[in-house]
Amino acid sequence: MEQRQPTRPVWLAADGKTVQIIDQRRLPHELAVIDLADEDGVIAAISEMCVRGAPLIGVTGAYGVYLAARRAAGDRDPDRRLSETCRRIKSARPTAVNLAWAVDRVAARIAALAPADRADAAKREAAAIAEEEAENCRSIGRHGLPLIEEIRKVKKGARVNLLTHCNAGWLACVEYGTATAPMYAALEAGIDIHVWVDETRPLNQGSRLTAWELGRRGIAHTVVTDNAGGHLMQRGLVDMVIVGTDRTTATGDVANKIGTYLKALAARDNGVPFYVALPSSTFDWDLTDGLAQIPIEERDPDEVRWVEGLDGNTIRRVLVPPFESPAANPAFDVTPARLVTGFITERGICRATAEDIRRLFPEKIAPRFF
Amino acid sequence: MEQRQPTRPVWLAADGKTVQIIDQRRLPHELAVIDLADEDGVIAAISEMCVRGAPLIGVTGAYGVYLAARRAAGDRDPDRRLSETCRRIKSARPTAVNLAWAVDRVAARIAALAPADRADAAKREAAAIAEEEAENCRSIGRHGLPLIEEIRKVKKGARVNLLTHCNAGWLACVEYGTATAPMYAALEAGIDIHVWVDETRPLNQGSRLTAWELGRRGIAHTVVTDNAGGHLMQRGLVDMVIVGTDRTTATGDVANKIGTYLKALAARDNGVPFYVALPSSTFDWDLTDGLAQIPIEERDPDEVRWVEGLDGNTIRRVLVPPFESPAANPAFDVTPARLVTGFITERGICRATAEDIRRLFPEKIAPRFF
Repeated sequence: MEQRQPTRPVWLAADGKTVQIIDQRRLPHELAVIDLADEDGVIAAISEMCVRGAPLIGVTGAYGVYLAARRAAGDRDPDRRLSETCRRIKSARPTAVNLAWAVDRVAARIAALAPADRADAAKREAAAIAEEEAENCRSIGRHGLPLIEEIRKVKKGARVNLLTHCNAGWLACVEYGTATAPMYAALEAGIDIHVWVDETRPLNQGSRLTAWELGRRGIAHTVVTDNAGGHLMQRGLVDMVIVGTDRTTATGDVANKIGTYLKALAARDNGVPFYVALPSSTFDWDLTDGLAQIPIEERDPDEVRWVEGLDGNTIRRVLVPPFESPAANPAFDVTPARLVTGFITERGICRATAEDIRRLFPEKIAPRFF
Repeated sequence: MEQRQPTRPVWLAADGKTVQIIDQRRLPHELAVIDLADEDGVIAAISEMCVRGAPLIGVTGAYGVYLAARRAAGDRDPDRRLSETCRRIKSARPTAVNLAWAVDRVAARIAALAPADRADAAKREAAAIAEEEAENCRSIGRHGLPLIEEIRKVKKGARVNLLTHCNAGWLACVEYGTATAPMYAALEAGIDIHVWVDETRPLNQGSRLTAWELGRRGIAHTVVTDNAGGHLMQRGLVDMVIVGTDRTTATGDVANKIGTYLKALAARDNGVPFYVALPSSTFDWDLTDGLAQIPIEERDPDEVRWVEGLDGNTIRRVLVPPFESPAANPAFDVTPARLVTGFITERGICRATAEDIRRLFPEKIAPRFF
């Protein structure tokens, strides 16, 4: 599945033993591909955010188990090596529940096999996860589309204005995206939409990645600072907010990129619907209280202090605050369920309550309220 | 009043005919001084944001009337030139009510004088405005200090954490600042404070200017993205928010740097006091509805797309989004009075209601509700 012009952010190279990814740190100014030969490469790619976004992190982590299994075939203690590898991969991004879910799924699939059979089984399982994620995103788009159609009806065909934060597009997933899936579905349905793209400091995934994605597909969009969304909503310029999530409790609390909570507050204050699009693998069925239970990753303060962009033909980093001023960089925040209008999942739409989430996913273990 | 190491952001040079300002666009990496020889220089300095901040814009505009009057002494129609000059200066930043207020005050002071006497009178009036602004800021600090002392008492002496947005410090005023005045007063009173500094996209006045100011005075501070404040409040890491304002209605609505509204929403959601510090010249006594009546300046989208900072010893601008992606740049938003805990003014503290504001400023014309 060699790609000349990548349409997915991760794939297995034609040699069958190298995983390739788009280096998302170089976008939008350069489309660079990185070869991952072993689990260390996978761990570095995840922790240094060459790949990011809940579903993509999961798929990349799953391929990491495959790469490790390939090399562990002749190991003296392959079981210990497998569990150690899984632990290391999972700790590369502690907030991302999909990573642990995907890694554990591949590990469970191969643990009972003879060491020599593990690599092939892991490869098939990782590929299966990738295909399921792609299919989930298509379903999210299908289920989200009627929400946009309804707004267009109420507006008598006038342009529908959406707002999104960070990048929950195909770059974050495998295809189609989560938050962007209803947008791409609306495009295909011929609905006139326009997307306000929060730049999403500190790493600017909105202005770098979401704007690049939407622009390539010809979707009208405007980059704004993270500060602008409240003002736009006050002025009636946002019909609906759609964001992704990195980890979601069984009760509907949402851990997503830092700043999501502020947009949810503004949406509520202005009566704007606030939807979270997610594959159900993003639910952490053991959690009932996002603020108390979800650990928030603190990242390198230099991500706040230095900004990367294009100067002529060169990608450079510039220092914004005084050299001596310290910075802090909490990477996620928790949006309480009470601020979420609904979830758009691969099975349909539900409200952000434990009961309505369970209605859609009855096979999942009920949250441990009691 | 020549300054070798400036302690004010605007002053009259020793030659008496040149106004000098700190070029705030070059901070924090370079302390550059610009000479303003005439009203065109003043207009450019204001509209290009070499100077910014409500009180400073007013003082600089006032000096602009002086510089114009100096040159207009021999003019054929000095009255027409004066009114034309005032109109042009006032339109350099339409949101800033202080600018119109200060320009009109100098104009009113000199309009009845003989043309030959106008320049000297304008110089004295501009200097008087500068001294009054400095004195107002000192008073704001004095009145805001007890709020911080009270928090420290409740916290049994533990460090008091404040959060501020944009720069309402001495760089924005003449001395001491507005939002920062209570911080400097707390420093002088020996209270252990720490300030979360919102970077304040797009022009990063927080990370560039507020961090620089606080660092020079030795106040503990941490730069955070504009996205982080809600998360910090959720975690109990903010005891009080203090911001400035560019224009305030007689009913307590606040037009301040874009993003202020989002912080006010988060403060209310988490029970954090949200104070606005201002000299009363920032009130626009004619306005009763901020959202309906305050025009919001739309600035150049390139301020969003390009970020300026230091690369080695060179100040450079880098492009963040794809070159083809458009951006929008609303510069202010309106925080409704219902989200404001109180105003810290040069006369004391009041609630954000028409009644309580009038209690403090009874000589002002009552808002035209009826």
